[in-house]
Amino acid sequence: LRELTARKGVILIFDEVITGFRVHPGGSQGHYEITPDLTTMAKILAGGLPGGALAGRADLMCALEFENRFGKKMKHPGTYNGNPLSAAAGIAALTEVSKGSLCQVANEMGLRLRTGLNELFARKDVNWVAFGEFSGATIVPEYDGPRPGNDEFIPFGNQVAKLDRKIDAKLSHAFRCALLLNGVDFFGWRAMLSGVHTAQDIDQTIAAVSEAIDLLRAEGLVP
Amino acid sequence: LRELTARKGVILIFDEVITGFRVHPGGSQGHYEITPDLTTMAKILAGGLPGGALAGRADLMCALEFENRFGKKMKHPGTYNGNPLSAAAGIAALTEVSKGSLCQVANEMGLRLRTGLNELFARKDVNWVAFGEFSGATIVPEYDGPRPGNDEFIPFGNQVAKLDRKIDAKLSHAFRCALLLNGVDFFGWRAMLSGVHTAQDIDQTIAAVSEAIDLLRAEGLVP
Repeated sequence: LRELTARKGVILIFDEVITGFRVHPGGSQGHYEITPDLTTMAKILAGGLPGGALAGRADLMCALEFENRFGKKMKHPGTYNGNPLSAAAGIAALTEVSKGSLCQVANEMGLRLRTGLNELFARKDVNWVAFGEFSGATIVPEYDGPRPGNDEFIPFGNQVAKLDRKIDAKLSHAFRCALLLNGVDFFGWRAMLSGVHTAQDIDQTIAAVSEAIDLLRAEGLVP
Repeated sequence: LRELTARKGVILIFDEVITGFRVHPGGSQGHYEITPDLTTMAKILAGGLPGGALAGRADLMCALEFENRFGKKMKHPGTYNGNPLSAAAGIAALTEVSKGSLCQVANEMGLRLRTGLNELFARKDVNWVAFGEFSGATIVPEYDGPRPGNDEFIPFGNQVAKLDRKIDAKLSHAFRCALLLNGVDFFGWRAMLSGVHTAQDIDQTIAAVSEAIDLLRAEGLVP
């Protein structure tokens, strides 16, 4: 894609709102060693406070300068532009992220959770599978395919229609409630790990999912 | 409008992002004693930190509840929903606003600035006029109509096309620079007063505009 866009003179934009400072201190572009023309950033960028940014090639960003090659300054008014508190929180967070270990720990914890969940699902013989990359983990229920052989595994041969299918709302709600009863709060069927999660947190999470499966089976929601 | 929308069963929405907690502790709806069906709020709401809110009729807002009359919960995911720091800043700001005097002072300062500017323009015989309401003041340059007789005056008989016309960019930039040289920073040709501005601030602003007119005249930008 980078080669094609460069050859055709098309601007390549990376949305690093989620991946930026998460998968790698340099974002997904740092991990994959690809330089896009423009990058959008938010979330970790502002250290937990609201904030976002656009960065990119000097000859494109110069549109924001008073005197530029486009002959017209691009306006970007905003009540919270340069909010000092968000900027201070961002500087503090990015200073920590730049040391590198936070992203590394988050990714390791993601791998540990995915692997541990798949071991649990096999042990309990439940039709669920976990997958994901970096610090993310997604559980797919009502899964009828083979169990993963490694962490690169993607269920349904990566068919988006099947991966993105609607999960039964009653099952999803019951799963969330069952996890909450065991002290764990998931985003639906997904989890994001951070640089301060520990192996103990992962063990506790896997134990909570184990209890949740038992609770859902007791209610006849899981075969 | 309120009577018509109520009769026709149309939802009336007030955008109080700017006016909320500014023109009156109860917003423009508090000032005009009109109750809309929905209200959008931001800016002062979050006490200088980023934040916004929607409020309104319980039978509409219930769309956000899990069990509601629409049969479906409206989703409203967001990374910064309920951001605790923005919420704390908002509570602190609204506690002050609720006492009432901040809005009152801001409105008084707005009136004082508009009146003082129009006295200045008449005294210096410059083709500018100031107008506005509540805590806002707008200067209209290149104005050829009658001078205002009171604070309700709107230039050009309130013709939007004339009020909203493009001001010469060179004049606008020179005016801003001239004001900055005299310690005052305007939003282009507009100003917003706050509850902590004082009569002394207004006098200083009017003196700065006076100096700016002299500077612009010296450069031949103002007749």
